[in-house]
Amino acid sequence: MRRPSTRDQLLATGLQVLHARGFHATGVQDIAEAAQVPKASFYTHFPSKEAFGADVLGRYWERRASHAATILSDQTRPPVERLGAYFSGKTMPRPDATFGRGCMIGNFSAELASDSRLIRDRLAAVFAAWETLLANCIKEAQADGSLRPDLDPHDTAAFLIDAFEGAVLRTKVDRNNAALERFQAIVFSLILT
Amino acid sequence: MRRPSTRDQLLATGLQVLHARGFHATGVQDIAEAAQVPKASFYTHFPSKEAFGADVLGRYWERRASHAATILSDQTRPPVERLGAYFSGKTMPRPDATFGRGCMIGNFSAELASDSRLIRDRLAAVFAAWETLLANCIKEAQADGSLRPDLDPHDTAAFLIDAFEGAVLRTKVDRNNAALERFQAIVFSLILT
Repeated sequence: MRRPSTRDQLLATGLQVLHARGFHATGVQDIAEAAQVPKASFYTHFPSKEAFGADVLGRYWERRASHAATILSDQTRPPVERLGAYFSGKTMPRPDATFGRGCMIGNFSAELASDSRLIRDRLAAVFAAWETLLANCIKEAQADGSLRPDLDPHDTAAFLIDAFEGAVLRTKVDRNNAALERFQAIVFSLILT
Repeated sequence: MRRPSTRDQLLATGLQVLHARGFHATGVQDIAEAAQVPKASFYTHFPSKEAFGADVLGRYWERRASHAATILSDQTRPPVERLGAYFSGKTMPRPDATFGRGCMIGNFSAELASDSRLIRDRLAAVFAAWETLLANCIKEAQADGSLRPDLDPHDTAAFLIDAFEGAVLRTKVDRNNAALERFQAIVFSLILT
């Protein structure tokens, strides 16, 4: 029982540390210290910091994927309402927001996609899964006539994800929620209509 | 004459290196080596790597600002045509594209905005200047009746910048031009209409 628990502790703590400080600015020593495990034990669980980063990203996305699926596939609500609820949940002002960390998917895309084939492939899988969840909901909304039929569901979904990641990136500079509210207002008045 | 030339060499080479590898993954030693100057000489020109990064960002933006101003303020062309030309110049497929580097403005936003006040302030100034260039052109296009009057010029400009940066980020993962072409198609069919 001990090994899985150390591994899990490293992943849970590492996620917080890598999200807050970024990948290259964080050493394996920092991760081990934050998780209160010896540095040597890190390498019994993960072959490299890169492999660790890929698993952390998987864990980060897992929770978000399940949250997105719950909202976007909820057959008790009209699909267009699900799209609105999904994005407003991600863009509305939060009293506890610090705006420093951004989204790990965007951060890793910027910092690691060009250097690490492993993480790039993991990011591509995340984007593909995210796009499918959104595209299916867009298709449903087109089928029931509540969304314009001229949108390509996959291209629109991918555009929304990219534009959302760009808005999150901007909140790191602005230190306020303006970019996310702008995203929500423009997307729902001009695109998802 | 020697000092300015070493400084300039450090900035020009440093821009290439920081853009290709990222800020934290590059050491002062790497920058000095690439510029073929002794490491000690780096510190006679720049108080810190952070200050160097801020100057490199300034240099990166300077050329792009002048290019944007040339196209977006060109009074010999209709404003809506200038907007199309500006973005298509940034999104059309290029035979020499490698898709590895992304945009330094987006990369620094992801990697440095939360840690460095100096670079965050510089990024905010870049975004503000970029937004003004675009917003002025949007206003002109609204004034001559070629663009819908219901868009807020500043919000729209900022949204376009964020969405563009998100699309560039995505090209680093996809290793192809699809996100940029999607940006161009959706923006010019649904927003700038």
